[in-house]
Amino acid sequence: MKTQVAIIGAGPAGLLLSHLLHLSGIASIVLESRSRNDIEATIRAGVLEQGTMDILTESGVGARMQREGVVHHGIELAFGGRRHRIDLTALTGRAITVYAQHEVIKDLVAVRLAADGKILFEVSDVSLHDLHDETPSVRYTHQSEPGVLSADFIIGCDGFHGISRPAIPENPRQDFQRSYPFGWFGILVEAPPSSDELIYAQHQRGFALVSTRSPTVQRLYFQCDPKDDVSNWSDDRIWSELNMRLACEDGWALKEGRIFQKNIIGMRSFVSTPMQYGRLFLAGDAAHIVPPTGAKGMNLAVSDVRLLARGFEQFYGKGNQELLAGYTATALKRVWRAEHFSWWMTSMLHTFADASPFQQELQRAELEYVVSSRAAATALAENYVGLAM
Amino acid sequence: MKTQVAIIGAGPAGLLLSHLLHLSGIASIVLESRSRNDIEATIRAGVLEQGTMDILTESGVGARMQREGVVHHGIELAFGGRRHRIDLTALTGRAITVYAQHEVIKDLVAVRLAADGKILFEVSDVSLHDLHDETPSVRYTHQSEPGVLSADFIIGCDGFHGISRPAIPENPRQDFQRSYPFGWFGILVEAPPSSDELIYAQHQRGFALVSTRSPTVQRLYFQCDPKDDVSNWSDDRIWSELNMRLACEDGWALKEGRIFQKNIIGMRSFVSTPMQYGRLFLAGDAAHIVPPTGAKGMNLAVSDVRLLARGFEQFYGKGNQELLAGYTATALKRVWRAEHFSWWMTSMLHTFADASPFQQELQRAELEYVVSSRAAATALAENYVGLAM
Repeated sequence: MKTQVAIIGAGPAGLLLSHLLHLSGIASIVLESRSRNDIEATIRAGVLEQGTMDILTESGVGARMQREGVVHHGIELAFGGRRHRIDLTALTGRAITVYAQHEVIKDLVAVRLAADGKILFEVSDVSLHDLHDETPSVRYTHQSEPGVLSADFIIGCDGFHGISRPAIPENPRQDFQRSYPFGWFGILVEAPPSSDELIYAQHQRGFALVSTRSPTVQRLYFQCDPKDDVSNWSDDRIWSELNMRLACEDGWALKEGRIFQKNIIGMRSFVSTPMQYGRLFLAGDAAHIVPPTGAKGMNLAVSDVRLLARGFEQFYGKGNQELLAGYTATALKRVWRAEHFSWWMTSMLHTFADASPFQQELQRAELEYVVSSRAAATALAENYVGLAM
Repeated sequence: MKTQVAIIGAGPAGLLLSHLLHLSGIASIVLESRSRNDIEATIRAGVLEQGTMDILTESGVGARMQREGVVHHGIELAFGGRRHRIDLTALTGRAITVYAQHEVIKDLVAVRLAADGKILFEVSDVSLHDLHDETPSVRYTHQSEPGVLSADFIIGCDGFHGISRPAIPENPRQDFQRSYPFGWFGILVEAPPSSDELIYAQHQRGFALVSTRSPTVQRLYFQCDPKDDVSNWSDDRIWSELNMRLACEDGWALKEGRIFQKNIIGMRSFVSTPMQYGRLFLAGDAAHIVPPTGAKGMNLAVSDVRLLARGFEQFYGKGNQELLAGYTATALKRVWRAEHFSWWMTSMLHTFADASPFQQELQRAELEYVVSSRAAATALAENYVGLAM
């Protein structure tokens, strides 16, 4: 097989890139290790920045998001038994939309297949070759048959555990990372929303987050030991823990319901540089991970892909490699901003077992400041809705 | 001896309190362990918040400060070979004044002595007694004679190493603290100012600060090992180190001169609560210490003392103890805000030997953000000039 741009991974980054390239008349093929059903059913992130919404809408794949997504104009920070609203729209003029990542994936798969776009699912044994040649290639197995895909470029959109990043040798690659000493215990619940807006709660027992996926499915999280096991947590114990962490003076209470999924996710900050190597480019989680506290993961993937799409438009349209050559430097500015924001939100809201009494008081002082200073609240809000870059 | 308010320590806190009480017709006596010459000659802090200037001016002791102090409308943050101005006045409507702490002390000593105020210098063997009685007392030795001072209240303004804080027993006292793994090497230099505004420089070799005390005396600092010895640092070595850390693309350079003092100061964050115990109240460094990065130490002392002065006005004028009873809670709000700010400035600007590459990149990302976001710059500026509370 031959194409112009070979894309490894059918997550939001890979699918959106394939779609944007198609709109610019550039051919691509997407290779994905999982099944279509699998990628369309896995519930992950759900907060879209204004810039992410804009690119989906402008590229003609935002209709269902506009219809079914819920625009949020604020978030709440809860601590000391009280909730404090951060009015995102009043502070920044922008908003966020809650629309689940797997719904974005469904929309993108549908639009690609409708345009006869080629996505190979359940591909295995993927390896990258000749990254410094003008026609690098991807070897893989699909439906038990070995295959080779030749392309002008290969884009690694295959996530943190994918094969693309390791294809860049240790020299020049440099990885930056931090693992946090806690994870998030996530549950999916059949219930109406407990709150019109997301609630980020800091509590001595640990962080908790009240989030939503749809009018009938809620996503709740609480800080846990990353080595804990979901089998240690009965439904009763989960509700008891959440209710303690979210207890509010004003009598607000969680709406409980049937818990139909439990999982534990680790928390990591990670950046790999360079994000390009010869004819290979990385986008999204393949190159960087943020802890989910700032809701930045999918949005960073989308902004990487937007840069790449512009780079390929310039390359194929004008024969100019300038944007592609500057991809790493341009992308990393936004990445490091989001890494800092995500680390800051995580540090401010979680309980650290080794925190001294002084650090605990500092954390409380910082929260008090963020909800009482317009400047500090604006700094949080402008990062949360996404900085223009 | 008898008085209404016995004040331990003739620093800015103790002297200003004595002056403010005098203006309200309340008698006080100040006991100080050092000589008048000593306290008037020791060069310490030098940045006054607007609120500090206002209280000195309103209480009639600001004339020389108005004449000789230098108003600064901005500060500079230097990193990556470039300087970035934080326009304090454009962002907050306020400014700071550079006027040395020992000049404030001279002004306050002069105004107290002119009003026949009593300050006992070179007092030793100070101890506090009967703190829960209506007439607590201070025992001391002055000019080789033992003495007893009886008062309605005792105010501990005797700094971190003073005897007042330890007079509060371990129950109910709670201390919060953090020591930093670095100190500041400070020099006093005979030279004209190198910069119109203070320069806070972050550099891989460590923090440096370009500050000023007067048109002919400059105060420069650089981060060092707190256990280092000034004898290890020749003048040449000091200038070489400062020039490396302050090197700027635009060719700006330090003005060198004769170094006439070298010292190393440790860096500590510290808060003790409660700030009152029976008839004893603590103010300034006796109750809390900030690292000098945020220039908050003297300003916090002044705001503590303003609260106490109002409390005593209420007590003696109306027989109402409400403000005095709420002193700890009211004062600690401002203290913790300043503690957080000072910790944040210190963390953002210093080099930490144990920082991972990830943390080093975060530090740079935060600096980039502070100088590029109006909201983030305003958050820094409003803390630097002093929040209204």
